[in-house]
Amino acid sequence: MRPLKIPKPTVKRLAIYYRCLTKLKETGIDRTSSKEMADALGIKASQVRKDLSYFGEFGKRGVGYDVDKLSYKLKEILGLKKNWNVAIIGSGNLGYAIANYSGLEKNGFKVVAAFDIDEKKIGRMIIPGVTINKFSEMSSIINENSIEIAILTVPAHESQNVADALVKSGIKGILNFTPSSLSVPENISVEDVDFVISLKSLTFEIASFNDNE
Amino acid sequence: MRPLKIPKPTVKRLAIYYRCLTKLKETGIDRTSSKEMADALGIKASQVRKDLSYFGEFGKRGVGYDVDKLSYKLKEILGLKKNWNVAIIGSGNLGYAIANYSGLEKNGFKVVAAFDIDEKKIGRMIIPGVTINKFSEMSSIINENSIEIAILTVPAHESQNVADALVKSGIKGILNFTPSSLSVPENISVEDVDFVISLKSLTFEIASFNDNE
Repeated sequence: MRPLKIPKPTVKRLAIYYRCLTKLKETGIDRTSSKEMADALGIKASQVRKDLSYFGEFGKRGVGYDVDKLSYKLKEILGLKKNWNVAIIGSGNLGYAIANYSGLEKNGFKVVAAFDIDEKKIGRMIIPGVTINKFSEMSSIINENSIEIAILTVPAHESQNVADALVKSGIKGILNFTPSSLSVPENISVEDVDFVISLKSLTFEIASFNDNE
Repeated sequence: MRPLKIPKPTVKRLAIYYRCLTKLKETGIDRTSSKEMADALGIKASQVRKDLSYFGEFGKRGVGYDVDKLSYKLKEILGLKKNWNVAIIGSGNLGYAIANYSGLEKNGFKVVAAFDIDEKKIGRMIIPGVTINKFSEMSSIINENSIEIAILTVPAHESQNVADALVKSGIKGILNFTPSSLSVPENISVEDVDFVISLKSLTFEIASFNDNE
């Protein structure tokens, strides 16, 4: 059992540390420090140590972290020791782009089903071997394929209805690319990806720079 | 001049408060409170007050916030009182999906140019009225159209080279959809959109729920 109340920004950073450690491993580096990891991410070393401290003691003062061990531990904490079956809900340009993103499989996420409402798309392949199905088949296909994660890319006005159907189908988590805030039962996890919010962070920064010039 | 050192998570939340206030305005509500905004976002009211306090006094104890005024102030803080010209760099499925996302124009972001390396795509329209151009024309088109923001959706191995070219072309900010950490001069803003990191936050939550059942 792991502690449930970890702040969201900490969880995001754990995922980023894990990515950073994976890169270090690939380049053959076997030791690192909170400072080195922090520098790579543009944050403070104390933040790295605080984030990791939620899960116990990892590094030794003056010696740092064993890349392999810390990486393995983060993999476990992030729930990545297993592979996850994923369904793409909404097979438009965005659905296609996500399904075909090479980083998915590399990170243990396997697209095993895709759905769309558009009759013309039904039966086409979203990626080799995975055909696009009707929404009406969602529940049975999700169950048969032990799909736990849905990636939601439908239009905003359909998002809540489709989310309700996904919850009924037994999905455990939704990666939400729609601009809607989804309302789901407490035991269902939702993670919003709203790039307009990121764009506004960007304009904030650009405007700040210009003001201070 | 506004304070430069606002924590990134605060900026993200300001953008979310702004979205929340916009919705309240649309539904004709003219007063709100930190608690109401916090509840809608699933955070604490004290967090809302702390985030806003970076920019002065907005609400009155017991009276709350004037939706119009606070919304206007946040619009200003986020640099959204002007419209932003945007270029799509990499016109694959993801580039198409983003360019055609209705939320862009609604939020003051106008796609005025698109680029790709693939000869077959050059000359096609990414959205009505905007043709896809060669990378070699990037610098002149960015200048002619006063484009300040680039949305980067090229393959990972090309991302740094393209980012360097964007910086040389005078771009001020990059919304980075590639998995690479871009290295840019200090006066250039970069915002990363990495949905695999969001997927890992999701698996963390799902795994935590299962562990605690």
